Amino acid sequence: MPLIATPQTMHFPDALPLQSGAVIRDYQLAFETYGRLDAVRSNAVLVCHALNASHHVAGVYAGQDRSEGWWDNMIGPGKPVDTERFFVICVNNLGSCFGSTGPMHRHPDTGAVYGADFPVVTVEDWVDAQARLLDRLGIGQLAAVLGGSLGGMQALSWTLQYPERVRHAVVVASAPNLTAENIAFNEVARRAIVTDPDFHGGHFYRHGVIPKRGLRIARMIGHITYLSDDVMNEKFGRQLRAGLALKYSTQDVEFQIESYLRYQGDKFSDYFDANTYLLITRALDYFDPARAHDGSLARALARASARFLLVSFSTDWRFAPRRSREIVRALLDNCRSVSYAEIDAPHGHDAFLLDDARYMGVMRSYFDGIAKELP
Amino acid sequence: MPLIATPQTMHFPDALPLQSGAVIRDYQLAFETYGRLDAVRSNAVLVCHALNASHHVAGVYAGQDRSEGWWDNMIGPGKPVDTERFFVICVNNLGSCFGSTGPMHRHPDTGAVYGADFPVVTVEDWVDAQARLLDRLGIGQLAAVLGGSLGGMQALSWTLQYPERVRHAVVVASAPNLTAENIAFNEVARRAIVTDPDFHGGHFYRHGVIPKRGLRIARMIGHITYLSDDVMNEKFGRQLRAGLALKYSTQDVEFQIESYLRYQGDKFSDYFDANTYLLITRALDYFDPARAHDGSLARALARASARFLLVSFSTDWRFAPRRSREIVRALLDNCRSVSYAEIDAPHGHDAFLLDDARYMGVMRSYFDGIAKELP
Repeated sequence: MPLIATPQTMHFPDALPLQSGAVIRDYQLAFETYGRLDAVRSNAVLVCHALNASHHVAGVYAGQDRSEGWWDNMIGPGKPVDTERFFVICVNNLGSCFGSTGPMHRHPDTGAVYGADFPVVTVEDWVDAQARLLDRLGIGQLAAVLGGSLGGMQALSWTLQYPERVRHAVVVASAPNLTAENIAFNEVARRAIVTDPDFHGGHFYRHGVIPKRGLRIARMIGHITYLSDDVMNEKFGRQLRAGLALKYSTQDVEFQIESYLRYQGDKFSDYFDANTYLLITRALDYFDPARAHDGSLARALARASARFLLVSFSTDWRFAPRRSREIVRALLDNCRSVSYAEIDAPHGHDAFLLDDARYMGVMRSYFDGIAKELP
Repeated sequence: MPLIATPQTMHFPDALPLQSGAVIRDYQLAFETYGRLDAVRSNAVLVCHALNASHHVAGVYAGQDRSEGWWDNMIGPGKPVDTERFFVICVNNLGSCFGSTGPMHRHPDTGAVYGADFPVVTVEDWVDAQARLLDRLGIGQLAAVLGGSLGGMQALSWTLQYPERVRHAVVVASAPNLTAENIAFNEVARRAIVTDPDFHGGHFYRHGVIPKRGLRIARMIGHITYLSDDVMNEKFGRQLRAGLALKYSTQDVEFQIESYLRYQGDKFSDYFDANTYLLITRALDYFDPARAHDGSLARALARASARFLLVSFSTDWRFAPRRSREIVRALLDNCRSVSYAEIDAPHGHDAFLLDDARYMGVMRSYFDGIAKELP
């Protein structure tokens, strides 16, 4: 009997002040919950999503067998984050294109579609919006906040913005900020979108077009950085498409890897919003809790009082293990409780979404421990 | 007194058969030579160029002080490849956009600009074309063939296509073939160019436009892969442009690395030909001497009789040291003479073009040894 997910939305009339100085009001957030909140409201786990995911983190939609949530291997009845014990919440972030208010929606004052005028949102803004949603659900303190990649940045930020509201933070395949190389890849992807003639300065909706060329390139770049060199060689290597002889063409597909990337790019450009892509990559670029502390991550993390689990993957070159170790070290400098697992997995950054017995074991064990603390 | 370089061209009326089965005839090659060929024609060194370089490898053009060749730190009077002792030749490859026949030239039969109809050329084709040019210069055997990156692939291929014509091969920052990840980056760059509306299927010349958007993206991707994560962090890190406060914008430059990449992309799109970019990246993809030997590089290299120097750089993730070691191992399996230097340098793939005392020392010492063998 699969877990049935039911998407919900919540409307927020009041203005949310954003880091940029702008405000957003009359917005809505899409979210899903799984399991039951216990009588003393102590078993809530907030899951934060990464770049291209949504609030649909677990279960399937009724009557749609193949609609599993993006972390359904991790979250559900009897799974590492056990929805028989925890009340799990996942919120689609502001600016996304999966149900929460985003660039394709209308500004409440002008009635015009936001487009490129949607305010720039940051990790901190998302956390503030999530906190207001939790307020409305009557959840004061989280048993845990959990996220991978950009989701891990939100989990980390929760412990700094609302330290008293987080008992545990589980930060997977993440980093305390982006490196220059990370920003560089984001920038190339953004330039591909922004310079697509169908982008129209971000107001492509009113022209009835979509900057698909740019989105395809952005996704292809992203995909390369999610995978490890090893797993690419193992999955595709230098295999020719369908094992045929060389065509000697600069524009046709010759190698399997080309075919795979083009397919991923095409698929993505059919469902993802270009302005959302810009907003979310920018939120990644901006995240840097140490910035306000002269670059000292240790001082930045002094505010955190949660207990932490950090997980990284050996072949993840986008958010390499050394980046997780920086967080571990800064927490230890503050004498915080922190567990750290560095998983030897071949799949690169993607590993955080995949089944790996050791990874799943670490997560299960940590959440078992959290469950034991529940009243 | 600087070395003065004088570009030359040579016309080839006869058909050159290409690996694809096509032929090219009535083509010209641009080249430069430095130093003097000795009486017994024993001191010639052929330098092969990489993706975006030309035949102008050393010296300056008369009256143009800042026109140094792309490897001027390596080649010249008293330099590691000493033009007082060696006669150095560098040939612009077919399909390039710096003087040799390429996509922007006219087909000799039809009089139409080649554009996308320029035949696909491979590393092996370039080597064949270089060999014909050496024939015309009266050079039977090379003291050495030298190249970095794609140039190193040509140097390696020389030892397989014309083993008796090469005494030494110096292969720097290269690989026996591209990995799936390398091909993937090339493919994204090509898609950016090909899907630029100004590409017009490769016949943009006749439309009076240039697919600059695509070229910019291609170059930005390339640039990221030439540099190491370390050197990017050191040079740019998370520095904001001009040290200003955050602008909170998805389209404006915020970080120095963005500014740098945009500048590199703009500059490149002003001088490089889009069809040439496709051709040269495809030549990189195709190179794989082991392909004809069931994937055995050792068997592929059995034909080589040259003595070898291989050089790699510790932080080069585009052509990582392990790829050079594969060549070293395959040569040793054939009991060939091979020296190998793995230089601990922070600059990534770009290191092969930069001054590094240990690197320069290795090169100087190896070429000194070659010079001592000269009559």
